[in-house]
Amino acid sequence: MSTQSSLVVAEEIAKVAKAAFESSQLVAPSERVRALNEIRKELESRRTTILAANREDLATAQIEVDAGRMSSSLIARLDLGRGDKWESMLKGVSDVAELPDPTGAVAYATELDDGLDLYRVSCPIGVLLVIFEARPEVVVNIAALAIKSGNAAILKGGKESNRTAKLLAEAISAGLAKTALPGTYIQTIETRDEVSSLLALDQYIDLVIPRGSKELVKNIQHNTRIPVMGHADGLCSIYLDETADLEKAKRVVVDAKIDYPSACNAVETLIVHESLLNTVWPEVARDLLAANVKLLCDPPTFNAISSLPNPPKNVQALVQPSEPSSYDIEHLSLTLSVIALPSLQSAIKFINLHGSGHTDAIITETDFAAATFCRGVASSSTFVNASTRFADGFRYGFGTEVGISTGRIHARGPVGLEGLVIYKYMMRSKDQKGHIVGEFGTGKKQYKHTRIHATSVPF
Amino acid sequence: MSTQSSLVVAEEIAKVAKAAFESSQLVAPSERVRALNEIRKELESRRTTILAANREDLATAQIEVDAGRMSSSLIARLDLGRGDKWESMLKGVSDVAELPDPTGAVAYATELDDGLDLYRVSCPIGVLLVIFEARPEVVVNIAALAIKSGNAAILKGGKESNRTAKLLAEAISAGLAKTALPGTYIQTIETRDEVSSLLALDQYIDLVIPRGSKELVKNIQHNTRIPVMGHADGLCSIYLDETADLEKAKRVVVDAKIDYPSACNAVETLIVHESLLNTVWPEVARDLLAANVKLLCDPPTFNAISSLPNPPKNVQALVQPSEPSSYDIEHLSLTLSVIALPSLQSAIKFINLHGSGHTDAIITETDFAAATFCRGVASSSTFVNASTRFADGFRYGFGTEVGISTGRIHARGPVGLEGLVIYKYMMRSKDQKGHIVGEFGTGKKQYKHTRIHATSVPF
Repeated sequence: MSTQSSLVVAEEIAKVAKAAFESSQLVAPSERVRALNEIRKELESRRTTILAANREDLATAQIEVDAGRMSSSLIARLDLGRGDKWESMLKGVSDVAELPDPTGAVAYATELDDGLDLYRVSCPIGVLLVIFEARPEVVVNIAALAIKSGNAAILKGGKESNRTAKLLAEAISAGLAKTALPGTYIQTIETRDEVSSLLALDQYIDLVIPRGSKELVKNIQHNTRIPVMGHADGLCSIYLDETADLEKAKRVVVDAKIDYPSACNAVETLIVHESLLNTVWPEVARDLLAANVKLLCDPPTFNAISSLPNPPKNVQALVQPSEPSSYDIEHLSLTLSVIALPSLQSAIKFINLHGSGHTDAIITETDFAAATFCRGVASSSTFVNASTRFADGFRYGFGTEVGISTGRIHARGPVGLEGLVIYKYMMRSKDQKGHIVGEFGTGKKQYKHTRIHATSVPF
Repeated sequence: MSTQSSLVVAEEIAKVAKAAFESSQLVAPSERVRALNEIRKELESRRTTILAANREDLATAQIEVDAGRMSSSLIARLDLGRGDKWESMLKGVSDVAELPDPTGAVAYATELDDGLDLYRVSCPIGVLLVIFEARPEVVVNIAALAIKSGNAAILKGGKESNRTAKLLAEAISAGLAKTALPGTYIQTIETRDEVSSLLALDQYIDLVIPRGSKELVKNIQHNTRIPVMGHADGLCSIYLDETADLEKAKRVVVDAKIDYPSACNAVETLIVHESLLNTVWPEVARDLLAANVKLLCDPPTFNAISSLPNPPKNVQALVQPSEPSSYDIEHLSLTLSVIALPSLQSAIKFINLHGSGHTDAIITETDFAAATFCRGVASSSTFVNASTRFADGFRYGFGTEVGISTGRIHARGPVGLEGLVIYKYMMRSKDQKGHIVGEFGTGKKQYKHTRIHATSVPF
C-alpha cells in the first residue's frame, strides 16, 4: 500500500473513530458494561477458531525464530493458549466491566448565583490510538478499558499476531453490534504505514498510548504532536542511605533485581552511600552474586568487593568495571550498575539526571532521609524500604492498568482507568430569564460560589 | 544574536530552571508564600521606577502606533499606570499567596500490606515556559502562580513591554533572594530566538503555556513536542432549541455577543432550530441589530429577517449572507454568524465540527435537550440557558486563572492552580525487613488494598 493511499485510509479510520466517539456520548453508560459482557460471550463462543488462528501465528513466528530473524521470547508472548492466558483474558473483560464507571462523576460543584449551578464532570477523552507489540490479548484488554471509559479506540498490534488479532477484533465488533454503541467504536489496523499516517491526525485523535519496546515508544514520541501517554524507559534506582539496614538492603535490592529482570520496574542502578563501602555493600553484593547478578561497578564499589575475604566463586566472572554510559542503560537482564556517592543530595541529583522518572527507592532508617528522597527525586513513584517492583497498577489497587506513565502531566506512574478520562464543565441556569454576565460586577450582583454537594449531574 | 548562540543560551537557561526546580523541591512550601509576600513588597518599593519604565515602553509603542505599525488597542494593554491596574496586580500576588497550597495533598492512600502504605500526593509539574504578549503585569501574575504551585518558570513577554518586564523581573528576583528558594526559580527571556530554542528542549521543560493571539498559540503548538496548555481559538456557539424561551434567548445571546466581543468566550455562531425561524429568531435578531451586531446569515435566517414587518433601520447595513467559511471564524468583534438547522442532533454535530472545544450553550426548556446537548457537545464547557461569557476561572470560583484550555488531557476549560500541579506516588514500608514483591502471589501474601484516610503524607 502506498503512503498516499494509506493516508487516505487512515484519515477515514480516524474520522469514523471521532464520529463513533461523538455518537457514543449520547448512549447510556450502562450500554458500555453490556458491550463488555457481550464481547466476553462472543470470545467464548469463538474460542476454538481464535486459538486455531493463534497456532497459525505461532507456526509462522517459529519459522522466523528458527531462521534467527525473531527473538524466541516472542513465542511465549504470542501464545494465547499457554497456561491460563485465555481464561485470564476473559476474566479481565469481566473485571473491567465490574469496575465503577469512571465517567459522569462530579468532582466539583458550585452555585455561582441563585439558580446557576456549575459541575465539573468526569468524561472520556475521545479517540485513543493504542499501539502495542506481540501479545494478542492486549487487543481485548485495551478494547475493554477503552469501552469502559467511554473512549473510541484504534488499535494496532504486532504483525506477528495479525491472524489472532483479526479474529479477536471481529469478536469485539460482534459484541458491540448487540448494543446501542457504534460497531466502529473499536477499530483495528494492521500496517505501520497506517500508524504513521494516523500520528499526523491530531484533529481526530486525542491520545496515543504506545505499549512495547523503548524503540517503539521513542519513535512514536518523536513523530507526533498528539499527546503520548506511556514510558520509553524504566531506569529505576535504589539508593542505600548511610543509615540503611543491612537486612532490608539485601532483601529489597535482590528482589528488585531478580524478581522479573525484564520488567520496567526492575532496578537497574544501585547507589551506595560511601560510608557503607566496607559494611553493607559487600553483603548486598554477596547476595546479588549468589543470585547470579552481573555487577558493573565504579572503582570504589569494585575495589570493596575485590578485596572481600572468602569472595564468592563467581566474583571475577560477574564483577566488572562500569563505564560512564553504564548508568544510562536499562539492562532488562540480570545486570546491575553500581556507584558510590558521598551524600543523599548527590544521590538525588544523580537519579534526577540519569533516571527515567519511573520508580526509585531509598533504603534508610530515618524519616528525614525518607522525606527528602521522596520529595527530591522527581520520579512518578518514590519508595522507602520497598522494592521498585511494587510500581504496578494491580499492586497499587487500581484493578486494572492502562500502562505506566513517566510524563509530567495528566497521569503519572501506574495509570488505571482514571488516566483514560478527563472532565468537562456543565452549567445550568434555572432562572426565569436565564443568566447573563452583564448583571454581575461592581454595584451589581456578586458571585456566590457556594459549594454544592453533588456526585452526579442532576439533569 | 545568531540562532546557534541563542541555542546555547537557551539550553543554559533551561538547565538552570530544571536545577532550580529540583532544589526547590527540598524547600518547605511555606517559603513559597513568603516569597510572594516579599515580591509584593519589592514591587511596592519600586513602583515609581517601574511605572517610569512603563511610560518609556508606552512612548515607544505610541510611535509605532502613529506610524501604523502597531494596533492602538495595544496601548491600553501595555499601560500599567492605567486605572487600578497597578493595585490589582499587587492584590493578585496577595490573593494567590492566600490560596490553599495546591501541593502535598493526598488524594488516594491505601495500605497494600501490613506496614506498606501508598500515597498519591499532589506535586508541581516542573519547569513551565510561559509566553505571552503586551500586558506586562502578566509577568507578575504568572510568576505568582508558578511560585505558589512550586514550579520553576521561564517567562517571555511581548517586546513592547521589555523595559517594564525587566524591572518587574528584577523585583521578583529580589523577593526570591530573601527566601530559601533559588533566585533562578523565575527567569525571563526577551527574544523570539530564545523561545524557538527553548521549545526544542523537552528534556528540561515540562509544560508550555502560551497566552496571546491565535497565531502565537498555533505557532507554538506546531513547533514543540512539549505539552502545550491553552487555546488557540474561542469559537463558541449558542443553539436555540425548538423549546427555547424567547426572553432567555434574547438576553443570553445579546450578552454573549456584546458584553466583551473580543473575549475568547464571546459567542461567534448562533444556531437556530428551523421551527423558530419566524418566531424567536426575528426577535433575537431585532435585539442584536439594536446592539449594532452584524449578522452573517444563511439563506433561511437571512430571509426570515429580510421580510420582517417594521424592520430595524440598519437591517440592510448589518445583515449579510454568510459564506461557508463564516462558521469557522472567531470574529472577536460585533459580528455573529447565524445558521438554521433542523434538529438538536444536527446542532451538536455542527458544533463538534466547527467549534473549537471552548464553550457552547443551549437555550431550551427541556431537561432532555439540556442533557443531550451537554453530553453530546465535546467542548470543555457546555451551558444551559446561560451566557458563554461565564466560562472564566474567577467566575467558576477558582480564585485565579492560569488560562483556558481546549485540550483533551490534563486540564480543560478555565484552569486554576490545579492545572499547574500533578501527582506522584510515595510508598513506605514500616516492616522490620522491608517489603519485597517476591512474598506476594498464589499461595503467598495477598494485597490488602485497605483505604487509608490521610490528607497529607505522614513522613
